[in-house]
Amino acid sequence: MELFLERGYEQTTVADIAERAGLTARTFFRYFADKREVLFGGSAILEARMVSALEAAPSSASPLDAVAAALDAAADMLGERHKLSKQRQAVIAANGELRERELIKMASLSQALANGLRARGVPDSGANLAAETGVAVFRIAFESWVNGPARAKLSDVMHASMEQLRSLTAAD
Amino acid sequence: MELFLERGYEQTTVADIAERAGLTARTFFRYFADKREVLFGGSAILEARMVSALEAAPSSASPLDAVAAALDAAADMLGERHKLSKQRQAVIAANGELRERELIKMASLSQALANGLRARGVPDSGANLAAETGVAVFRIAFESWVNGPARAKLSDVMHASMEQLRSLTAAD
Repeated sequence: MELFLERGYEQTTVADIAERAGLTARTFFRYFADKREVLFGGSAILEARMVSALEAAPSSASPLDAVAAALDAAADMLGERHKLSKQRQAVIAANGELRERELIKMASLSQALANGLRARGVPDSGANLAAETGVAVFRIAFESWVNGPARAKLSDVMHASMEQLRSLTAAD
Repeated sequence: MELFLERGYEQTTVADIAERAGLTARTFFRYFADKREVLFGGSAILEARMVSALEAAPSSASPLDAVAAALDAAADMLGERHKLSKQRQAVIAANGELRERELIKMASLSQALANGLRARGVPDSGANLAAETGVAVFRIAFESWVNGPARAKLSDVMHASMEQLRSLTAAD
């Protein structure tokens, strides 16, 4: 990740990454299909954990509360990695192709959460809306946490964003 | 648009489009930079109208109400074109590259609305959250309208989605 920041994503080769990590290129390819995987390999795991948490929420939980449980799972997975998250965000922000890929991952996350809500019996439009809104809260909270002090807790920032959403929509 | 549906976006040439529209290729290029423009040329206008409506909302309007005014402007612009909207949506859904482009346009719309809210004095995190949420409502309402009967009014569907958001977030 540091290499991407030092040299730029485009200019960094797999050989560079492997060398910095003390791996041969061959070993590198055993773990990652390509250098983009270094940035996005965790996205599928994140999505799977968030969907599990949503599925595990008590059946009495409202759609938004089930989504909040998914956000807690994300905070759990990412919350200890402030520096790495900040570096990753900077690498992605600097490259148009990576920004697009991140948007696609977020759209996929939103669809996965909406499917999970439908499986809980939430009707279509409510499921889509709660999922999209949840992903919006996730993105905004994550960005604010990444740009804030390392000692802030991601789960606290997410809860504050969720509260802010509730008060925004409750206005008047 | 019909050509894209009949032949597929990839397979349709600018010459095909010009012929169907009764234009020479030369005239076509006076209006559109390329065939993608046929699908996305309206997005910048839509964004500009939505931002103007947000700016024109009374200063007493809450952030979400200002966003709702932007959605009304969108409904005004798109609401009469149910068939065209439905065709456009089908063309985009069938092509990965176009789906990505649409995601990027939506991210740009969200940023433009957030900037508009900041200019109204809304603090950063609230501006981002209200804009993202508004775009989520827009996308979901638009999709549901496109897939519903042509006689439904887009503005009604958007208002219903906004109400649904309020009740989702008001739960418990």
